[in-house]
This record gives sequence, C-alpha cells and structure tokens, in this order.
Amino acid sequence: MPELRKDPVVERWCIIAAGRGKRPSDFVGEREPHFTPEGEKSCPFCYGREDRTPPELAAYGRPPDAGPNTPGWTVRVVPNKFPALQRDGEFIRTSDGVYDRMSGIGAHEIIVETPDHYRTLDNMDVSAVAGMLRAFSDRMLDLENDDRFKYVQVFKNFGVAAGASLEHPHCQLIATPVVPKRIIEELKGALEYHEFKERCVFCDVVQRETSDGTRVVLEDDYFVSIVPFASRFPFEVHILPKKHIASFTEIAEDDAYRFSVHLKTMVGKISLAFGEPPYNFMLHTAPCRRGDLAYYHWHLELIPKLAKAAGFEWGTGFYINPTVPEQAAKDLREVPFEVNEAEAEVQTV
Amino acid sequence: MPELRKDPVVERWCIIAAGRGKRPSDFVGEREPHFTPEGEKSCPFCYGREDRTPPELAAYGRPPDAGPNTPGWTVRVVPNKFPALQRDGEFIRTSDGVYDRMSGIGAHEIIVETPDHYRTLDNMDVSAVAGMLRAFSDRMLDLENDDRFKYVQVFKNFGVAAGASLEHPHCQLIATPVVPKRIIEELKGALEYHEFKERCVFCDVVQRETSDGTRVVLEDDYFVSIVPFASRFPFEVHILPKKHIASFTEIAEDDAYRFSVHLKTMVGKISLAFGEPPYNFMLHTAPCRRGDLAYYHWHLELIPKLAKAAGFEWGTGFYINPTVPEQAAKDLREVPFEVNEAEAEVQTV
Repeated sequence: MPELRKDPVVERWCIIAAGRGKRPSDFVGEREPHFTPEGEKSCPFCYGREDRTPPELAAYGRPPDAGPNTPGWTVRVVPNKFPALQRDGEFIRTSDGVYDRMSGIGAHEIIVETPDHYRTLDNMDVSAVAGMLRAFSDRMLDLENDDRFKYVQVFKNFGVAAGASLEHPHCQLIATPVVPKRIIEELKGALEYHEFKERCVFCDVVQRETSDGTRVVLEDDYFVSIVPFASRFPFEVHILPKKHIASFTEIAEDDAYRFSVHLKTMVGKISLAFGEPPYNFMLHTAPCRRGDLAYYHWHLELIPKLAKAAGFEWGTGFYINPTVPEQAAKDLREVPFEVNEAEAEVQTV
Repeated sequence: MPELRKDPVVERWCIIAAGRGKRPSDFVGEREPHFTPEGEKSCPFCYGREDRTPPELAAYGRPPDAGPNTPGWTVRVVPNKFPALQRDGEFIRTSDGVYDRMSGIGAHEIIVETPDHYRTLDNMDVSAVAGMLRAFSDRMLDLENDDRFKYVQVFKNFGVAAGASLEHPHCQLIATPVVPKRIIEELKGALEYHEFKERCVFCDVVQRETSDGTRVVLEDDYFVSIVPFASRFPFEVHILPKKHIASFTEIAEDDAYRFSVHLKTMVGKISLAFGEPPYNFMLHTAPCRRGDLAYYHWHLELIPKLAKAAGFEWGTGFYINPTVPEQAAKDLREVPFEVNEAEAEVQTV
C-alpha cells in the first residue's frame, strides 16, 4: 500500500508509491552526453579565456604576482553575464493595486569549480571540492555586507535537463532582496518546532537518522548523508552537519573538508548508479546576518533528475515518489564509490 | 532592469527577467512527436479495448441499452491501473518520533476525453470539451461523499516531457486525504486578504485585469483568460470565472460550455504558437465539501512546458521567468486561433 509521509520541517506531504517500487535500474537509460566538442571549443570558463566573462570577483590558487583575469587559478568567481538580478540600480518597492513589485536588485554569480573542462565533481580531489566550498562561503560573507540582500542561494545545475547551459563545471549563487518562499517555510516550521520542544528539528532529524540508520548513506563524526524520510524525488539525498550551525558561513575549515568528502561521495554514487545523470544541488542556510539562529541548521539537498514533476505536483505541491527512501538508501550504500581513506583525512587546503 | 513580482495570493515572488526578453520564437524547437504508431497499437483507451482498463466508474454518450465497458462512449472515466493512492485499506495515521505517516488512501482516476486517439483538446468540439468538464464535476461530487477525502486535484499532462505516459487524450484526478500544500497556501493567502478587505482576492484580480487589459488574452461576460501578473513560467495562462464561485462543482452547465471555449482557445493558441508543446493544466477548486467559501474562487492554471525549473527554483521556490507577462499576453492575443462564433454560442451538451 502506498504511504503518505510528511516532511518534518515544512507542511509538505509526499506519496511514497511503494507499489511502483522503482529501483536504480529503472532509471538507467540513454543520456544525452554532458560534454560535447562544441561545448569545449566555445567555453568561456577555460584557461586563457578569462576575458570572455565579466571581470572576476574572486580567484583562488593563482601565484601572488599574477594579475587578475589570467590563467593559473583553481577556483574562479565571476558575475553572471546574463544575470537574473543585478547589483546596480535604484531599489524601489511599489504597490500596484492588488499587486506588489520590487526592482530586480540582487547578485548573480558563477563559481567556476575547476580549470579542467571535463573534471566533474566526483572526479575532483576532495581538497578541490573544499576549495569550491570556501569560495561559496567567502562570497556569501561578502554579499552579506550589502544589507539590501536578504538571502544567498548557492546551487548547481549539472546537465542540460537539470538546467545547465554551459558544460564547464560550475555552481551559481543568486542573492535576493527578499527571503525566498522555501526558506521562509523552513524557518517557520523550524521555529514552531523549536517553540514547542526547545530543540532544533534538524538536530532531531540527525539524531533519529543516525540512531536508526535505515536511511543513512554515509556517516562520520561530523556529517550524515541521508535519503530523507519524506523524499520528494527518487534517490534524493540530504547532507546535514551533526553540529548545530545555522549558517554555512560559520563552517570551520576542517569541517568544510569533511563535508567535501560527503558531497563528492554522494555525487559519485549517483553518477555511478545512474550513468552520470543530470542533477541539482541546493545549499540551504540561514538568511543573511542571521547566523545566530537557534532553530535553523544549514544543509545541502541533492536531487538527481530521474523523475519529472508533472501536473499533480505543480497543482498540489505534493510529490509522488516511486522509490521507497529506505530502499534508496540501501541501494546507494551499496554503490561502490568511495573516497579512499588517505584522501578522506583532513588536509590543509 | 529585472523586476520582482509577488503573487497576490501566495507568498511567492517571481523574477521577471525582462533583459532576457524571450519571445515565442525562442521557444519553438524540435519537439518529440506526441503520437507514435506504437502508441496507438498498444493504447488501452481506444474503442474495443475497454477490458484493458479496470472497470469504468462513469461513461457518457453511450446508447442507454449498451452495457458498461463497451464502445460507443464519448467520455469515459476509469480507475488508474497503477494508482498513486488507493481506495481500499485501513486508514491509519501514525507518529513516528519526529516524523508523521498516513496510509496512502485516496483515489486516482483517468478521464478519457474522447474515443479518438489523435483528437487533441484544441481539435475537439467545444461541446466535447464541455462533456469532459462535466465528467470532472460528476467525479468530484461523487468523491466528496467519501469523507476520508479532503481534496480532488484534476490535472492534465500532455506530452512525455510534461509527464504523460499514454498518448490517448486523457486527464487525471487524484483525491487526497489531506488538503495539499499549494491549496493550503492559496486558502491561507485568500483568507488573510478577505479578513483585511472583506473581498475575494481572485475577484479583485479579475476586476483589475479586465479593467486594465494588458494581461488579458480572452474575455467574455463569464470568464477571463490572463497571463498572470507574477507568472512563474513563460506563457503561463490562468482562466478565472468572473462570478465568485468557490468550487468547480457549482459551475452551471452553460458556464461549463463557456469555460470550454476559453480552455480550447488557450490550448489552441499555445499549440499553434509553439508547435504543439508539452503542457500541464491544473484545476484549483475549494476543498471537498467547502463550496461555500467566500474567500476562495476556482480557476485553472495552464503551463506550457517551455522552460525548466532548475536548482534556483527548487532551492528557493522563486521562479525566473524570461518572458514579460504583458508581452506574453500580447503575443498570445495575436496567435490566430479562435473558436468560431457559431461554435462559441452555448449549445446544449
């Protein structure tokens, strides 16, 4: 019999359609190749083409005497050439009868993860992944100085079907002048839980999942990667820090390294299980300048693009998940992808 | 400069990325054909194959002396062979520590719109579309008798990319044992507005749109089809009744006919403009047995599948729409698809 499960944080029910019982092999199909010869030829993110992007906002790994916008970097952050929101302009809020408008003030940046056009995240060294995370954190801290910005959403679209328009490995961030709907929902749910129980709901989830283990894919002393109880999508994975920290920007350098082991492993397992499928990941963190929240807890959501949202999902906000989360976790545990022990040891980035 | 616009009902901001300014021609591309020879050969919804579906729940148009599950129908409703939720079984709600579960009780039905495998909605007679709407309403009224059901979501997935797995024109409905998240959000937003202003927010939207006209695609004395102010997707269309009615099941027969003119015209315009793209539509109506609500107002949302939700949308619940709604409405007004006057006159169904 199918089962309805409620997300512990937001008011979202999911239908776990056990009868459909889809396993990894049901999702392996022909995939469009992510990389193409034309994609590399026209790539604006490779070495030597630094002038094809707007001037960089940050770069890491370049020799100290090298100038900006030159090769030699390991991670590079540039403004999006076609930004969804922009930094310049007057910030106006207007009412228009029944409607509300606001200028499209914000920031839209690209984090180029590696100089290597073909180096997918699961093939990066853990220290290189940690370097990318450091760029996230540095950019978030910088953007928080602009008090027009209320939230910074970091995300990755991998593969055309997941929304990527350029092949070269990159993440994006968008700073928004309002706290987004999903984050408001998480904050609200987490606050209500905290008022009721004096505990962080995410801490409780971590405790429950690690004591139970059926939905755990990877665990160490610092992080746990789980298939969430009320997963919206098949083989969705969340990575949560065990320590209560509201904002990703508060992460210690060693913990960023440990988190990188989880992120690389989860992307690697999904790539191996499904033949490098398109995927998205989204970092959820406290709103700008609210790193002190007792009830919020940063985490990362990773969604392989195996199923489509259709009319029912768009209409209701309910999701029908054809894969039972406990089975998905077991399947992912068994995928033979892991970071070797020597690499998993914290190294100075 | 881009603009942020807030939905007047729910707490959702959209980014109208005017700079990207996408027009219809930007979305016309090669499309997978919706119909294939294999699709017809294996179709369980064509005449003479009535035994390939579970026994029918309703059928229209068949001669009175014909038996059930035989040819001769014009619209036929059957249970989904692979239901997401099921009617039989014990209805149990359980708490599981931090988590909540519920049995997957509900109903999942298919409304076969026409016996003709290749008859897309824009090629149906208006009276046939009205016949399909009557089936929606009859099924909703029947399901409301089961007080385990809190909401009935009617929706259509057209095309593989929009989630259709069978070609033959059909809609679906799913009855759920909780009011879905999106509907709760609409109810909540509409209630707050009503408490504040003593008016229905949807009635105010109708008034504003019809007096302004820039976002109107089609209007008559009974319905208005608009591109919403805070559209999530390019060329999204909403159809609203001008008269305040909370539940679709309260629609008068003549109005169902008039609504069919709008629905056929909107699907026809989108099909013509974009080369029969995949699309979804979703009927939003009052929860079961709540047709008396003063603050809620049924409507239909039609979304052509031209853009993808990606990491930013999944992470934030914000949408980036590259097409300005006013321009989209103008473009759709100019698409030369219309129901001719004789057919648009209300006819007895």
